[in-house]
Amino acid sequence: MVVTKFNEELPKATAKRLPQYYRIFKQFVADKVERTNSQAIAKKLGVDSATVRRDFSLFGELGRRGYGYDTLALRDFFSDLLGDSAETNIALVGVGNLGRALIHYRFHDRNKMRIIQAYDVAGNPLVGTTTEDGIPIYNISDLKKNLADANIETAIISVQSDRAQEVADTLIKAGIKGILNFTPRRLEVSDDITVQSVDLTSELQTLLFFMQDKKETTK
Amino acid sequence: MVVTKFNEELPKATAKRLPQYYRIFKQFVADKVERTNSQAIAKKLGVDSATVRRDFSLFGELGRRGYGYDTLALRDFFSDLLGDSAETNIALVGVGNLGRALIHYRFHDRNKMRIIQAYDVAGNPLVGTTTEDGIPIYNISDLKKNLADANIETAIISVQSDRAQEVADTLIKAGIKGILNFTPRRLEVSDDITVQSVDLTSELQTLLFFMQDKKETTK
Repeated sequence: MVVTKFNEELPKATAKRLPQYYRIFKQFVADKVERTNSQAIAKKLGVDSATVRRDFSLFGELGRRGYGYDTLALRDFFSDLLGDSAETNIALVGVGNLGRALIHYRFHDRNKMRIIQAYDVAGNPLVGTTTEDGIPIYNISDLKKNLADANIETAIISVQSDRAQEVADTLIKAGIKGILNFTPRRLEVSDDITVQSVDLTSELQTLLFFMQDKKETTK
Repeated sequence: MVVTKFNEELPKATAKRLPQYYRIFKQFVADKVERTNSQAIAKKLGVDSATVRRDFSLFGELGRRGYGYDTLALRDFFSDLLGDSAETNIALVGVGNLGRALIHYRFHDRNKMRIIQAYDVAGNPLVGTTTEDGIPIYNISDLKKNLADANIETAIISVQSDRAQEVADTLIKAGIKGILNFTPRRLEVSDDITVQSVDLTSELQTLLFFMQDKKETTK
């Protein structure tokens, strides 16, 4: 298949739907569905089919009129787009409750992403140990050397908020290009670094807002 | 202060920025900043000031030309909008690694949201115990009775994906109106129920996509 890359910048909302599209097409292939259409995709995603068609038009010529989309080709397209055709090794900094849960989280079950190293400050009694899954927990002072050895460009930050910026700076100096930030602190980074933030409190507040909004509009 | 509610439906992107605005105004008040403007807000949020002005125009008349925004009034405005002026009690279902981390997560430190009950199936040895913070972990068969007693309308689902829909159905039958869904499974619910999903794998894939995209555009 010819991978047709988009020329214009992809809207952020579309980019955020890419993992969902990928998951849906993997499911189609697993279910032995060979072709599909924008309505079926839209239904699985919970959006309208115009959104799907608009997104797909940005990716290039992926479907054929009257035939629809070839699920195997599209699965591979999204896999390439998301870099899931190669293994991605990840380092995690901050082995508290959330950090431990993330280390156990089965990113690798459905994708080629894997946390292979974890870090914390010397005061954390887990430093120097290895998790039951075999992931070493290092002293953060060894970060630079270890990351270079393991060719890691992606990191997860799950430390206390007030340490987030300092940890980000350390990671970037050690060669990290992308950070998944689980603290509510907004990180200041240079343009060549990518940050994706997951703020659990914000997610919960957004839920509460939509619940309240729904109550008021249906009153 | 007069809370001016928006008449038209709030765009989803704006709604998702509400928790950030709220956090920023709480910080302004804590820092004893009495008034501010859209540029300063935009800088803290990492967006352009036109976005802030457009969002704020949807909320009604919040600022005064030549004066800017009163930080205390705005903090209270966002607090009301997000329902953070009242306590919100939350139930969590699924006390695995992620569930335990969420129980320990300090939602309450900065906001009036609090997980007060947790549930799992009888097979989980933690059922029948209480966490060190005093949160009881109940058998899921007691859900309906306990939720009604505690007046809980909001729940977090952190179970295995294949149980997510069944748990959601049980929660909704027990009176839950809003679900924060930590499984990758899309939940099918009726229109009166609100679902907010946090898919950790998707977040990581989105990060990898933006990293790859940045590499290609700066090549």
